[in-house]
Amino acid sequence: MAATCSRLAARGQLCSFTSPQKPLHLQDNAALPASLRSSSFNGTQLTQAVLTRGVSKAQPGVVAPRAVAAVSEKRKDAFGEEKKLAEAPSSLLKKGPDGWTSPMCEKFEKVIRQVQDEVCAAIEELDGKKFREDSWEREGGGGGISRVLQDGNVFEKAGVNVSVVYGTMPPEAYRAATGSTEKNGAAPGGAGRIPFFAAGVSSVVHPKNPMAPTCHFNYRYFETNVPQDVEGAPRAWWFGGGTDLTPSYLFDEDVKHFHQTLKDTCDQHDESFYPRFKSWCDDYFMIKHRGERRGLGGIFFDDMNDRDAEEILAFSTACGKAVVPAYIPLVAKRKDEPFTEEQKAWQQLRRGRYVEFNLVYDRGTTFGLKTGGRIESILMSLPLTARWEYDHQPEEGSEEWKLLDACKNPKDWV
Amino acid sequence: MAATCSRLAARGQLCSFTSPQKPLHLQDNAALPASLRSSSFNGTQLTQAVLTRGVSKAQPGVVAPRAVAAVSEKRKDAFGEEKKLAEAPSSLLKKGPDGWTSPMCEKFEKVIRQVQDEVCAAIEELDGKKFREDSWEREGGGGGISRVLQDGNVFEKAGVNVSVVYGTMPPEAYRAATGSTEKNGAAPGGAGRIPFFAAGVSSVVHPKNPMAPTCHFNYRYFETNVPQDVEGAPRAWWFGGGTDLTPSYLFDEDVKHFHQTLKDTCDQHDESFYPRFKSWCDDYFMIKHRGERRGLGGIFFDDMNDRDAEEILAFSTACGKAVVPAYIPLVAKRKDEPFTEEQKAWQQLRRGRYVEFNLVYDRGTTFGLKTGGRIESILMSLPLTARWEYDHQPEEGSEEWKLLDACKNPKDWV
Repeated sequence: MAATCSRLAARGQLCSFTSPQKPLHLQDNAALPASLRSSSFNGTQLTQAVLTRGVSKAQPGVVAPRAVAAVSEKRKDAFGEEKKLAEAPSSLLKKGPDGWTSPMCEKFEKVIRQVQDEVCAAIEELDGKKFREDSWEREGGGGGISRVLQDGNVFEKAGVNVSVVYGTMPPEAYRAATGSTEKNGAAPGGAGRIPFFAAGVSSVVHPKNPMAPTCHFNYRYFETNVPQDVEGAPRAWWFGGGTDLTPSYLFDEDVKHFHQTLKDTCDQHDESFYPRFKSWCDDYFMIKHRGERRGLGGIFFDDMNDRDAEEILAFSTACGKAVVPAYIPLVAKRKDEPFTEEQKAWQQLRRGRYVEFNLVYDRGTTFGLKTGGRIESILMSLPLTARWEYDHQPEEGSEEWKLLDACKNPKDWV
Repeated sequence: MAATCSRLAARGQLCSFTSPQKPLHLQDNAALPASLRSSSFNGTQLTQAVLTRGVSKAQPGVVAPRAVAAVSEKRKDAFGEEKKLAEAPSSLLKKGPDGWTSPMCEKFEKVIRQVQDEVCAAIEELDGKKFREDSWEREGGGGGISRVLQDGNVFEKAGVNVSVVYGTMPPEAYRAATGSTEKNGAAPGGAGRIPFFAAGVSSVVHPKNPMAPTCHFNYRYFETNVPQDVEGAPRAWWFGGGTDLTPSYLFDEDVKHFHQTLKDTCDQHDESFYPRFKSWCDDYFMIKHRGERRGLGGIFFDDMNDRDAEEILAFSTACGKAVVPAYIPLVAKRKDEPFTEEQKAWQQLRRGRYVEFNLVYDRGTTFGLKTGGRIESILMSLPLTARWEYDHQPEEGSEEWKLLDACKNPKDWV
């Protein structure tokens, strides 16, 4: 399960450490415990990350400080080895501990698996080659389905992962969360551990043709729950996710189509979403040492629990379903464009930047790598090939320069 | 200078955060200050790293705790922009502040520049193509000479960097270092800042032919000094460095030659060196998330100040001079070997591992990237091309498997 968690983390599904910090609002005004930072989970390091992810510096309604980076490497494989499954189970949730359940998590798993199916189907149709599928589960709970299409006709590497993680946290963590009074603080049901649930879909798609852009998306949901015999206990949940585009060459109309599709999707739910999430995305995918973004952005959000969960589920679902119409037409349009060796080499350099962002800044990736995640799923996001040239500087005004300029100075595309 | 520092750091020249911790023995039994961790240098973040690098948990003779990771990103470019020089200066030290000097640093600069010359000459002779040279200095003090040969006949990418860093630390840091008594603690010369000096050579050489191994080496020296009008004040210094080999295919005789050459060099100075430094090297270059080493090791040492500085200078010099005889014959022998596309792809996968180590684990690199170092020099170590395949597993018993096995289970080669 550590691997499952980490895989989720790897794709930023569960946590985005470097994203702007927003407080985690807990129901019943309870806050997640500082003790989570060092407590021993029947659990995953990532769970800690997930739990503490939204718990930032003292803010209204937030108690615990955020401290994730130091999470131990010692609990590697706390969830036992992953077991490969012959085929994907109908639900990754079916072996939940003590029969606990979460209607929202069940719904969310359905959503993300449908998104996985839709995106994979669209990619297969365009490529002509089929995805390879690996399914697994962990003794500790949870599992995942990785699909990878490598060295296809159109795509260099496309990966779409779904993971579901669940387990329990110890009562002392729960008591700390609820303020340590007998009334609120006793672990509900006595010494019982507190169940949590997390699920996400994540994907990176690298086409071969340098004129066709790379796309990344992930959508995730998290909640803590309490044993079923206890009423009115604290419960925390949030959604997060995003979709972003990384071209090697800039076609304004392509980027506009991508952003417009995302904006249309956002606007149907809340007109404040697109401008906020577009800007958040520009901030998140910054390669700081280069002073440039990984690509041309899209949307990114996290810690979202400011309205009815069903509403956010609907929004997340819409975002997931927007991936195919936002992205696939761009590849269809560009996949057969002629290109030179130099243009291919430029794409490879941009792939190198992609690797730099993912290995250096994507906290989910680095966290996942350092805590015993399923490496192949975490690093599925890396391109098949990449290149680093010493001191490469595109000529001012060139097509390469234009792309770089747009990565350095984000524009309003719609 | 931040860049210069970081560049040195990038190649592990100045600090190796993940190497086994050894106490830093200061002359006069003074210790470096805990306050260095947060004090404001006319200085570089890396200087802090350098200064605190050897200051580990409470050990005999060691006072200050080690805490480097949190060093601020805010002091980016504290040393001003780097200025490109038309040609390499005869000494990178000549603009030292207040005319202070260090006989050892002058000697060490000569050594590392000679090593740079020798290694570059040997590579050029084998390749037929010439290195490109970039020299620069920083307003804050120090400078560097980067030499890169890219896409040559024999070498995919070869870089050999020399850097010299110097500056001053504030008196409060110095006072803290000396215990804050009037006698020892007053900053020598009143309010004067304490000069420090650091220098290093670092290099990564990636050949084209997958049968020819990659080689990395770096040697570095650091000291703090005091204004010249003060006698008997604390002074700290140490040497560090190493040379290691990263083949894609295992030829026992090649690895033996490499290790034997290093061992012979070590043995001429201290027979305890090779076994200790070989083991240290195996530990340092671990790609933890893969459970495998980057390559087949060599030697690695740090914090070395347990004998006369002249002795260690002689040892470091011998190590630098051993690079050519240890490594170059292996490339000469393998550069024209036939290879298949599959073997080239395997080399590219190993290059991907190299990238993973450098971007994820090499603290110098990550630190350099995050603190405004000269990016092109820091990332010069990355290969021209690399590859990531999903879930690649060499067939047991294959040549690829044998290499991987040797990376997982370090052997005694001599």
